[in-house]
Amino acid sequence: MPRFGGPATFMRLPVGESFQDTDVAIVGVPFDTATSNRPGARLAPREIRDESRLLRPYNMATRAMPFDSIQIADFGDVPINTYSIEKSLKIIENYYKQIFSNDCCPVTLGGDHSIVLPILRAARQRFGPVALVHVDAHADCNDSMFGEQFTHGTPFRRAVEQDLLDCSKVTQIGLRGTGYSPSDFDWSRSQGFHVVEAENCWNRSLVPLMNGVRERVGNVPTYISLDIDGLDPSCAPGTGTPEPGGLTTSQALEIIRGCHGLNVIGADVVEVSPPFDLTRNTSLLAANLAYEMVCIHPRVRSLAND
Amino acid sequence: MPRFGGPATFMRLPVGESFQDTDVAIVGVPFDTATSNRPGARLAPREIRDESRLLRPYNMATRAMPFDSIQIADFGDVPINTYSIEKSLKIIENYYKQIFSNDCCPVTLGGDHSIVLPILRAARQRFGPVALVHVDAHADCNDSMFGEQFTHGTPFRRAVEQDLLDCSKVTQIGLRGTGYSPSDFDWSRSQGFHVVEAENCWNRSLVPLMNGVRERVGNVPTYISLDIDGLDPSCAPGTGTPEPGGLTTSQALEIIRGCHGLNVIGADVVEVSPPFDLTRNTSLLAANLAYEMVCIHPRVRSLAND
Amino acid sequence: MPRFGGPATFMRLPVGESFQDTDVAIVGVPFDTATSNRPGARLAPREIRDESRLLRPYNMATRAMPFDSIQIADFGDVPINTYSIEKSLKIIENYYKQIFSNDCCPVTLGGDHSIVLPILRAARQRFGPVALVHVDAHADCNDSMFGEQFTHGTPFRRAVEQDLLDCSKVTQIGLRGTGYSPSDFDWSRSQGFHVVEAENCWNRSLVPLMNGVRERVGNVPTYISLDIDGLDPSCAPGTGTPEPGGLTTSQALEIIRGCHGLNVIGADVVEVSPPFDLTRNTSLLAANLAYEMVCIHPRVRSLAND
Amino acid sequence: MPRFGGPATFMRLPVGESFQDTDVAIVGVPFDTATSNRPGARLAPREIRDESRLLRPYNMATRAMPFDSIQIADFGDVPINTYSIEKSLKIIENYYKQIFSNDCCPVTLGGDHSIVLPILRAARQRFGPVALVHVDAHADCNDSMFGEQFTHGTPFRRAVEQDLLDCSKVTQIGLRGTGYSPSDFDWSRSQGFHVVEAENCWNRSLVPLMNGVRERVGNVPTYISLDIDGLDPSCAPGTGTPEPGGLTTSQALEIIRGCHGLNVIGADVVEVSPPFDLTRNTSLLAANLAYEMVCIHPRVRSLAND
Amino acid sequence: MPRFGGPATFMRLPVGESFQDTDVAIVGVPFDTATSNRPGARLAPREIRDESRLLRPYNMATRAMPFDSIQIADFGDVPINTYSIEKSLKIIENYYKQIFSNDCCPVTLGGDHSIVLPILRAARQRFGPVALVHVDAHADCNDSMFGEQFTHGTPFRRAVEQDLLDCSKVTQIGLRGTGYSPSDFDWSRSQGFHVVEAENCWNRSLVPLMNGVRERVGNVPTYISLDIDGLDPSCAPGTGTPEPGGLTTSQALEIIRGCHGLNVIGADVVEVSPPFDLTRNTSLLAANLAYEMVCIHPRVRSLAND
Amino acid sequence: MPRFGGPATFMRLPVGESFQDTDVAIVGVPFDTATSNRPGARLAPREIRDESRLLRPYNMATRAMPFDSIQIADFGDVPINTYSIEKSLKIIENYYKQIFSNDCCPVTLGGDHSIVLPILRAARQRFGPVALVHVDAHADCNDSMFGEQFTHGTPFRRAVEQDLLDCSKVTQIGLRGTGYSPSDFDWSRSQGFHVVEAENCWNRSLVPLMNGVRERVGNVPTYISLDIDGLDPSCAPGTGTPEPGGLTTSQALEIIRGCHGLNVIGADVVEVSPPFDLTRNTSLLAANLAYEMVCIHPRVRSLAND
Repeated sequence: MPRFGGPATFMRLPVGESFQDTDVAIVGVPFDTATSNRPGARLAPREIRDESRLLRPYNMATRAMPFDSIQIADFGDVPINTYSIEKSLKIIENYYKQIFSNDCCPVTLGGDHSIVLPILRAARQRFGPVALVHVDAHADCNDSMFGEQFTHGTPFRRAVEQDLLDCSKVTQIGLRGTGYSPSDFDWSRSQGFHVVEAENCWNRSLVPLMNGVRERVGNVPTYISLDIDGLDPSCAPGTGTPEPGGLTTSQALEIIRGCHGLNVIGADVVEVSPPFDLTRNTSLLAANLAYEMVCIHPRVRSLAND
Repeated sequence: MPRFGGPATFMRLPVGESFQDTDVAIVGVPFDTATSNRPGARLAPREIRDESRLLRPYNMATRAMPFDSIQIADFGDVPINTYSIEKSLKIIENYYKQIFSNDCCPVTLGGDHSIVLPILRAARQRFGPVALVHVDAHADCNDSMFGEQFTHGTPFRRAVEQDLLDCSKVTQIGLRGTGYSPSDFDWSRSQGFHVVEAENCWNRSLVPLMNGVRERVGNVPTYISLDIDGLDPSCAPGTGTPEPGGLTTSQALEIIRGCHGLNVIGADVVEVSPPFDLTRNTSLLAANLAYEMVCIHPRVRSLAND
Repeated sequence: MPRFGGPATFMRLPVGESFQDTDVAIVGVPFDTATSNRPGARLAPREIRDESRLLRPYNMATRAMPFDSIQIADFGDVPINTYSIEKSLKIIENYYKQIFSNDCCPVTLGGDHSIVLPILRAARQRFGPVALVHVDAHADCNDSMFGEQFTHGTPFRRAVEQDLLDCSKVTQIGLRGTGYSPSDFDWSRSQGFHVVEAENCWNRSLVPLMNGVRERVGNVPTYISLDIDGLDPSCAPGTGTPEPGGLTTSQALEIIRGCHGLNVIGADVVEVSPPFDLTRNTSLLAANLAYEMVCIHPRVRSLAND
Repeated sequence: MPRFGGPATFMRLPVGESFQDTDVAIVGVPFDTATSNRPGARLAPREIRDESRLLRPYNMATRAMPFDSIQIADFGDVPINTYSIEKSLKIIENYYKQIFSNDCCPVTLGGDHSIVLPILRAARQRFGPVALVHVDAHADCNDSMFGEQFTHGTPFRRAVEQDLLDCSKVTQIGLRGTGYSPSDFDWSRSQGFHVVEAENCWNRSLVPLMNGVRERVGNVPTYISLDIDGLDPSCAPGTGTPEPGGLTTSQALEIIRGCHGLNVIGADVVEVSPPFDLTRNTSLLAANLAYEMVCIHPRVRSLAND
Repeated sequence: MPRFGGPATFMRLPVGESFQDTDVAIVGVPFDTATSNRPGARLAPREIRDESRLLRPYNMATRAMPFDSIQIADFGDVPINTYSIEKSLKIIENYYKQIFSNDCCPVTLGGDHSIVLPILRAARQRFGPVALVHVDAHADCNDSMFGEQFTHGTPFRRAVEQDLLDCSKVTQIGLRGTGYSPSDFDWSRSQGFHVVEAENCWNRSLVPLMNGVRERVGNVPTYISLDIDGLDPSCAPGTGTPEPGGLTTSQALEIIRGCHGLNVIGADVVEVSPPFDLTRNTSLLAANLAYEMVCIHPRVRSLAND
Repeated sequence: MPRFGGPATFMRLPVGESFQDTDVAIVGVPFDTATSNRPGARLAPREIRDESRLLRPYNMATRAMPFDSIQIADFGDVPINTYSIEKSLKIIENYYKQIFSNDCCPVTLGGDHSIVLPILRAARQRFGPVALVHVDAHADCNDSMFGEQFTHGTPFRRAVEQDLLDCSKVTQIGLRGTGYSPSDFDWSRSQGFHVVEAENCWNRSLVPLMNGVRERVGNVPTYISLDIDGLDPSCAPGTGTPEPGGLTTSQALEIIRGCHGLNVIGADVVEVSPPFDLTRNTSLLAANLAYEMVCIHPRVRSLAND
């Protein structure tokens, strides 16, 4: 079957039937109702799956062999309610409780960033407060947006309030741009988050940064949340709230690969917006990043280690 | 000032300050949270205004001279809440109550079609149940969509339930495509609506149809709601739920021009989605249709009548 | 599940498992190696399936109820060899032999038009020479293109040579444009084909034409092959060899609906090229046309007949 | 050589060397400095030539055989000065004097519509005032635009003032939209022009209209000027000042084919704007229309006449 | 009001009424008649304003608080004459004289680069010859282009000739690509300009460069002119004369932020071409750069300094 | 003549007539039948030529003066057979034998990467096994793809088998992404190739790498093959098999410029796919890279050397 044929599951994986026998579940959350600017992330899960056709099984850089090591399946999409943020967050939370209770690790294709809150709520039930590696242009720690508590700009504020995070083990990378107050990022810092502004990433490898992250986080269950707008718009043009001056693709790869060794219990790529991704290369990038997230699963073997 | 310069109000109209002294108010409703498929209509009001730069003051076909006759101003956008359908519908209703209570006629740039319900609610308070000329691919009379009552597929069902329409004076034009039941359009008919399926419009002028509409409606206060997807996707590609086999642009012009003589108390153009309108020609079309709606205002003079 | 979520099968149909219990099989043929101008049709099956999300089960115009009447499933794609026309045609032929031998009716999502030859070869084995309703800008009856026998411009010449067609029951609709000789269409006519040039379709309903087709064809097993470039580029911009002056979408619907009553044994929509379909509306149109082909299956019930 | 290979001359014609031995000269005028809204027509000649690759030598509808009958060559582009309207108009006029003085018929690929004035000035020197078939959304008879005399909205006013036209033999087809005064088209009519507004073309064949044109014009030397925005934006989206409600592609073909029999001394297709023609189908349409203009050259043989 | 609603002024600033009470004036110059390749910059001011909706008031990197410190307003566009370079340059000069004479600092949204000449002419009247920080792929110091003196490739040659620049305090950053002579940049150097070719910027921070600039320039009144094509096409694809191998976005930010401390009397962002900016991210980038130019205004307070 | 006018040859070079008197021949190979994912490279030669209009004669960075030094001409395209890989490879080989036998250096505009095999076969006849500088995301050393030997993923495996390469003088730069086995690149290394994975290029200048290449290769005849997907998709979005994490444009320039001094006997830029290059900037980049390849021809003079 040529690359562009056959069912458009993630990397043409089989459709998942039970989380019980699955190590990593690919899950789409086609939800963008909590978006503040350009919508479209609802269309991302299908588009990322389609573009994942270009992926081959082995990771040449890390020599990871995910499909030789663990069970991976595509479970399709969470049946969210596009008309209600509140109902959708509840649906997502219940869905992910099932995943985590089966010791399955979700790699999520968003959707806007509001979806991370119910995922973290579900994770807490299984793991307690988790460590977080958060790549983003924005801290997403607003108290509210336009008067609302549950939006794509507020999930990590809610997560702290609901005790979902081990705050001393949270790292936010790539923050930048303009803010609602000159001290927007101070709130994150006051919670104990390690905030790495984009300006501190320019023109350098992030391998040292990630060495520090691994040291600080240790074996604590860790969630990775990657908002595609953490990358520079040159690398990820197809997104809803682009901010110039962001990370390069190679830095994003360094971050995910640098999480190898952590006790990763879930990960997501969010905020890809296909209507603004005319070449479809942002979806293709997201597919690659999701694949890299699979490759760092603790039970994946790597030729590099043999 | 060249066409492409200066403030991007509708046709470079002055910014409206009071509905009291205004005959026709251009109003944007940048809301698309009630959309079921491709989002993006939230971006339409700004885009339609930008493309309206190509419009000159006089209507060559009808010889209408709107700006010589009445006061027209652009009042900007209704400050909807993008995260809540319920709150937004309330905000819209209150906003339009102000308009109608000042005997001002709104020409609305949507936004998705859910916004017509609060407009009709506001209209009822001033006019009682109104006649309706509704151009659309879809009847928008579903009882609910995905379990929700207030979406872009349900406004006219709600409008009937809330006694907002003079059902015997409702005309739906352009309906077509696939449905949730083979008798979807029967509900409309059972309410007394005059349903004109797209198939009955193919290859013909709609002037006779509109003659009939004017006769049937008489002097009853009339609202015009034009979903851009009533037109064929060849004419209006930039929309969220396109249906092949629709009206031509000339038929849409015949419908609006055919409303001249009715007691039009408001009108809208909805469901333009700029992310799917790469040439911006759908926004430009919508600008033209909104202009034609202005031109049929009862107090607009026409050289044709002089 | 929202429209844009869930597995991207045609209309979210179940994945087919056996042709034996299936009345209509949706099959993709992601092949464009036989294209002469702009490539890209290889990407169409996935894109048409994705855009088919907008389709609901019932046909409002014909009141057909396909899913209440017959078994329909999506069998995914034929595993063609993108590097070899010859091998692919053989693979396709063998695949379709299986379909036809199970009395299953294929509705095919192309792919370029070369794929119709192996389908017709397979059909002949089951049905003998078939009647044909062929919608296209081009006769596709060249003897060769650039020296080659098997291309997207030659399938019907080959089909006649191989006695696959009941030539007196072949109708070609929409032919137009420029040719390699001023008598290009004469070959078709000399075989007994009924050739309806696009110029003879302008500004008129094709219902009378199709009444004639049904009369002429009678009960002979009939195949429908619809090259999307039979439609005007305004209606179907996303294709590889567009020709101005073609059929309207409503005429295409009249043709397919006008085949109701024929003994249709298979149908296809070919030559959609997603890279040239930036709004994705051509894929959406193709999805609708494929749906209409399902609706005219002889065993589909219609409320209109009840 | 495949269609998409080889030198990108019009229809891969040889490069013209002398107007003397050439019946029809294809000439590009890559000029858009006189545009009032969206620029880009400067890029059209190269793009139309590229897309002309799809054209084959014979006209299937009219059975014209241009390349068997006359000498046709592509002379490339006029070396206009993109920074000066005044200088460019002079350059164009001198260039076309050469063409006309050699009894060669130019088929011009614009460029914006300002370029027709110097062409008509050159034509007058050879032929005296000429008859005109002018397809356009706009009369292009403004006295000035933004204070300037020489723009793409004024050429035919200047042409009348300079006695370039046989006014009783001028036909303007497709005019519509909005104007600077309700009587904009009255000026044309007061000069004796035959003005056919777009509204009078809707839903009908233009064959009768063109019969009348031929009768009225007789043997007077005739120029054809086709602004692509005369067509509806659904048919010709890639243009700078689109106006909804225009001619269909089939009507444009009827107009040009209906000029067969006239003493055509030159023709142009103007106002294609490639940056707004993302599918390139408007350029392809323009290539087809230019080809049809070649086919009606008085000395072209047609199989239909044999 | 959601981000995408309300009037499309820069950052939804109030419309400026008097330069007298304004510290920084946002001004658009929708002019592209002096462009040599792809046009479209005329459409940039409106597009940059629209995309500026994503900007929030505070600068997270520099902690600047512009709106808490100074009066900023959007004065709309200069009413240029799109048909005449000469007249437009005069109109622009007169317009900017008004600005400078009121001690107001203009931040200009171009338009092509020709517009910097009249701005510098106006500046000279108030400040004498100014220092210049010029970011660009091209030196824009040609003696003429295609025989013309006033184009987008010549403004700084004219500026030197007219004694508008303090040549020893001019820095040109990002120059690269191909030239009309192998010593094109030598002219700049011979005037005393500090020329930093793009090759000298690759893979490094420009903070040291800017330290040097500030030292060299001191307190001399300084103008910043940023041609968006100074950035690499990966960062700024939507422009008319892209040159591969340019600055990164982070380097552009370093340059503007590195001007903090200079006596900046005006700044511009030019050469954004919306028709080539399909994602609109180049306009969004330009909006961010214009915002950064506001933030370095000498009277803007910064939390970093408190 | 403005940049956008005149014949669309590479840099408006004259059309080549004889390889004998030509130092460097620009040749297009419009072939993409051997592509595995997104097609479209067949359209690249025309598009690269069109966009080469922006190039001026002198190289500002290297001060090379190619047109003052050697004879360069555009020979148009190789007349490949789009329907047959096998026949096309033979046609290409024969065509290039002519070039090499005339001591002419081809700079080729692809086309997909399969075309390098027949070029290398032709080169071997003249030069014996050659050194290779190969920029690519992929090693293109698969044994077969989907069962086929001659595809765009296999040319260098075939080249080794056919003894076309001096394996110890082969450098592959930019390899990355996912593979069919974790040891995909080991085959290259086992042949003696110098493999430089993309990860080893991140955040650094490649000048030292190229110093090593020149040292290792010495005076051996060298071919340069640059697959545009060697660059990061941010720099070269318009290609068929993009891989995130690639080279920057400045690194690509360092590689080509770093080949100055080698005995370069031919070079190519392949895999540009115009349908995925909506801004046309990838074609423009390819034009620049081809120009740089011309500039390093051994007989080109440079002001830097004078």
